[in-house]
Amino acid sequence: MARRSGRRPGNPATRDAILAAARTAFAERGFDAATIRAVAAAAEVDPALVHHYFGSKEQLFLAAVQAPVDPRELLPAVLAGDRDGIGERLVRTFVAVWDSPAGAAGVALLRSAVGNEWTARLVREFLTTQVLRRILDHLDVDPAQLPLRGGLVATQLIGLAVMRHVIRLEPIASAEPETLVATVGPTVQRYLTGELVD
Amino acid sequence: MARRSGRRPGNPATRDAILAAARTAFAERGFDAATIRAVAAAAEVDPALVHHYFGSKEQLFLAAVQAPVDPRELLPAVLAGDRDGIGERLVRTFVAVWDSPAGAAGVALLRSAVGNEWTARLVREFLTTQVLRRILDHLDVDPAQLPLRGGLVATQLIGLAVMRHVIRLEPIASAEPETLVATVGPTVQRYLTGELVD
Repeated sequence: MARRSGRRPGNPATRDAILAAARTAFAERGFDAATIRAVAAAAEVDPALVHHYFGSKEQLFLAAVQAPVDPRELLPAVLAGDRDGIGERLVRTFVAVWDSPAGAAGVALLRSAVGNEWTARLVREFLTTQVLRRILDHLDVDPAQLPLRGGLVATQLIGLAVMRHVIRLEPIASAEPETLVATVGPTVQRYLTGELVD
Repeated sequence: MARRSGRRPGNPATRDAILAAARTAFAERGFDAATIRAVAAAAEVDPALVHHYFGSKEQLFLAAVQAPVDPRELLPAVLAGDRDGIGERLVRTFVAVWDSPAGAAGVALLRSAVGNEWTARLVREFLTTQVLRRILDHLDVDPAQLPLRGGLVATQLIGLAVMRHVIRLEPIASAEPETLVATVGPTVQRYLTGELVD
């Protein structure tokens, strides 16, 4: 994977202090309410240094969560194309990321989130603000249903990752990606755009 | 919940030795291949003592996994009734168990399984032999598809438990049980009896 930015890594101790402050801020207040300014104050550095080291608030958040991939690089391909194919495209992209070298970092993040309330909050914020919101904003469905739709998608996809990569239940663990796309894709599609209640 | 048996608990050290041997045997060989005789030999006790303390191989396995509920007590109600309602009934029962006091033990088991390969194997065996097999045996579908169907059901249900009780993503975490039955039930139904590929 290409490096995300040409920024120099900077002083490791300062970076670590900023990341620790960012984790606390994002876990306590959530992504939307946390600010670069507050993170900088907690780390006792100038806000400009946070921007210098990490770029935008989104980039700081991805670094704080230790997200192995940037959803902004992956979601455009999922969202492009016909509305009825979004479920399959989302599952295809999700499976490809988890089957890639980034998947090991995903498993580590999942392990941490399951064992640690703080990481669980960060993962929740990551899913909500960096993944689900970006997808749901593109769908022409009743806004009141969006949180439930997003949550249902999350249940199916996280369950797929857990069973394929952590519990390693067969035949899910060894299934061809396209088998999962064909079987799980329609579920995700229904959660995103279908009738939720018969 | 009623006590499962009138047996006395027996010598704690002996019980623990049997349980440790059982965990190893079930994780290494799987539920079907592990035998009470081999467990007894590894624990250096008479097989009759294993039966005396734990009853059947199924009961020994449930104790070894620390399963908070016995699927044999819950599944008859799921399997009774019309075939088209099995998905909703399974989700209703699953949500009720996880929302009950037994749910805390389920979360503990899940945490352990995510962090520990040995427990992951036991959970895999539990899902396969104690839950999924019992459900799938009742369905009139192509036997070749049964493992995939069972695995897909597991992805959706475990993902639901993780999101509701561990990551606690809203609105899944606080959703009314019947909302989950109405939205996730059709997914489970399709995985069990529907066309898997469009």
